[in-house]
Amino acid sequence: MNNFEYYIPTKVLFGKGQIARLGEAVSLYGTRALLVYGGGSIKRTGLYDKVLAQLKENNIPVFELSGVEPNPKIESVREGVRLCKENNVDIVLAVGGGSSIDCAKVVAAGACYDGDAWDLVIHPEKIKRALPLVTVLTLAATGSEMNGNAVISDMSKNDKFGTAGLALKPKVSILDPEYTYSVPKNQTAAGTADIMSHIFEVYFNRVPGTFIQARFAEGLLKTCIKYGKIAVNDPHNYEARANLMWASSLAINGILSYGAGVAWSAHPMEHELSAFYDITHGVGLAILTPNWMTYVLEHDKSTVDRFAEYGINVWGIREDLDKMEIAKQAIQKTRDFFTEIGIPSTLREVGIGEENLEIMAKKAASMGLENAYYPLDEKDVLAIYKASL
Amino acid sequence: MNNFEYYIPTKVLFGKGQIARLGEAVSLYGTRALLVYGGGSIKRTGLYDKVLAQLKENNIPVFELSGVEPNPKIESVREGVRLCKENNVDIVLAVGGGSSIDCAKVVAAGACYDGDAWDLVIHPEKIKRALPLVTVLTLAATGSEMNGNAVISDMSKNDKFGTAGLALKPKVSILDPEYTYSVPKNQTAAGTADIMSHIFEVYFNRVPGTFIQARFAEGLLKTCIKYGKIAVNDPHNYEARANLMWASSLAINGILSYGAGVAWSAHPMEHELSAFYDITHGVGLAILTPNWMTYVLEHDKSTVDRFAEYGINVWGIREDLDKMEIAKQAIQKTRDFFTEIGIPSTLREVGIGEENLEIMAKKAASMGLENAYYPLDEKDVLAIYKASL
Repeated sequence: MNNFEYYIPTKVLFGKGQIARLGEAVSLYGTRALLVYGGGSIKRTGLYDKVLAQLKENNIPVFELSGVEPNPKIESVREGVRLCKENNVDIVLAVGGGSSIDCAKVVAAGACYDGDAWDLVIHPEKIKRALPLVTVLTLAATGSEMNGNAVISDMSKNDKFGTAGLALKPKVSILDPEYTYSVPKNQTAAGTADIMSHIFEVYFNRVPGTFIQARFAEGLLKTCIKYGKIAVNDPHNYEARANLMWASSLAINGILSYGAGVAWSAHPMEHELSAFYDITHGVGLAILTPNWMTYVLEHDKSTVDRFAEYGINVWGIREDLDKMEIAKQAIQKTRDFFTEIGIPSTLREVGIGEENLEIMAKKAASMGLENAYYPLDEKDVLAIYKASL
Repeated sequence: MNNFEYYIPTKVLFGKGQIARLGEAVSLYGTRALLVYGGGSIKRTGLYDKVLAQLKENNIPVFELSGVEPNPKIESVREGVRLCKENNVDIVLAVGGGSSIDCAKVVAAGACYDGDAWDLVIHPEKIKRALPLVTVLTLAATGSEMNGNAVISDMSKNDKFGTAGLALKPKVSILDPEYTYSVPKNQTAAGTADIMSHIFEVYFNRVPGTFIQARFAEGLLKTCIKYGKIAVNDPHNYEARANLMWASSLAINGILSYGAGVAWSAHPMEHELSAFYDITHGVGLAILTPNWMTYVLEHDKSTVDRFAEYGINVWGIREDLDKMEIAKQAIQKTRDFFTEIGIPSTLREVGIGEENLEIMAKKAASMGLENAYYPLDEKDVLAIYKASL
């Protein structure tokens, strides 16, 4: 096990009706709020009105940044920073999924920074301070509600970068599984794939002695497999929505990676797909992941042990089979699961052809893939993209 | 899943050499320290000198409360409070196992309280504030390093009570697995049993839909079983010590109980054994637990599902056996494991006879056992004590 520093200060208010504590939570940290959200879904569900009522009750003036995109753009961040600075905002409140929260994080940091907010995306070390952030989560996927990470895009350059900072960790996050009842099937499925990918990125590591981390990862993968299916077919199933929502936070709040590290593989490859084609992040991950697994297993036979462990402990494949056979079955079951919950299995299905594969592979390979579980260069990424067509 | 509020603000510095960060960590919160520790083991291992050097380097005057007992006594707490008040101490530093940390917690709260510290033990709601607490852990067992709980005894009344408060959560805990290399076999075994018991107290609950919590609990139980054995036989095995140490914190920092609650059963029963006979807490737990399991399974057949799940997922018992058979085998395997790591299996072996069973059963039954997984009254506890003789 590697040395690590564990620090997860976010307070999570989990469960039905926790929105009633929002006003009190916000008041603890600020007096003038910027409300950051995406499209109209929080208005349709009535959550928007509840949020405003809570703020009004606590005499907190609200400014709004709405229309945050599914892959949040730097232009939205800049607009949020402007609103904060012009209105002396001292707390940021994100209501929505990971996109709104990611945008709000960089807005919160940008409000305490003199230069352009894009600096904070490409130079995380420049994030020294941020306004306090409170979130209300409506989608189980990115885990942004409980960590200091954010991903922001500049579509003008087809750039999509992740940034991070301790100051970006939310003070309080409200997680009410009922707010995810209205998430459509395809977004529920994509969110589940995103959670699973976060787990894979840690589970497939080479740090010896990370027994606890591996067992926790397997537990969360089983959670996604069991409840992802249920939530897609029965959207109002509280137990399914609750387990998926909590899994989304635990998958990437550090509890899996402390001591083990994160060996990002699928995420950097997918970020190029979203940056070039603006596809749903979780869909891109689900398309790539089984092909990435197959590629790794074929090119580095020493990985068979971990893939077989995955097959036995997560998919319940019989231990007495040949290890390579278990590993291959496990990868096939991963693909079958994504298909079963309705996610496309090829890039062509989401409108991606061969036209940009080489430039995307080149960019992806420059995003730290030499530190991946199986180190990937441009040629490797291109092969995985092609296998995914 | 129940509603819950997640809040684990303790920063954990985990791994080899983290002691080098102690001075900096303490300086962040205070200027005059009370050092709380037990016997001479930290002097023998050289840890005491390292701690003092760190404090000296940061110009922090140190006052000392030494000789804290394995089941910490209220007299030690009172002495600590006196030292804090007389010397304007503004930070408490515990170096040792759960006993030193528990004692330090109540000292830290007592220093901010006008009445007698025992009030804070029997009335947790009176704990409003506490001096900041930093810990250096030397024993994987109680999990006190990452939560707000403390157990204090008043031997003059054979009383042993648990108290708790948000203000008691350590600010920083240093967990260096190498500091547990010198823990003797019997204490390593007892610590492992204590960790496992914390997990059982949450795993055996009746809250529906706590899938994640159950899988995490099983993962930690497997960790204890695998590495408890290794650590007893190979005390300098870093991987084993690291996994046990991290398991001790995760077992009772809330990650297992959030959403599931804690249905204390073995702990209240054991506390009476320690209160009357001053035996090692983990030994008492290991003696009682399999007998408690058998009693519950016999008296409430509906519990067979969870016991069978425990047998399959933790002990790898074949799923195709009869459920009751799996459950019984799982309990037997639990007993066998404790025996294998060298823990006595009967009360008589640790010097406890029939003399106080009735009064102990009466006291234990008054400690909230009506809320246990299987509610226990005086007669039930007595039966379990007798089965444990």
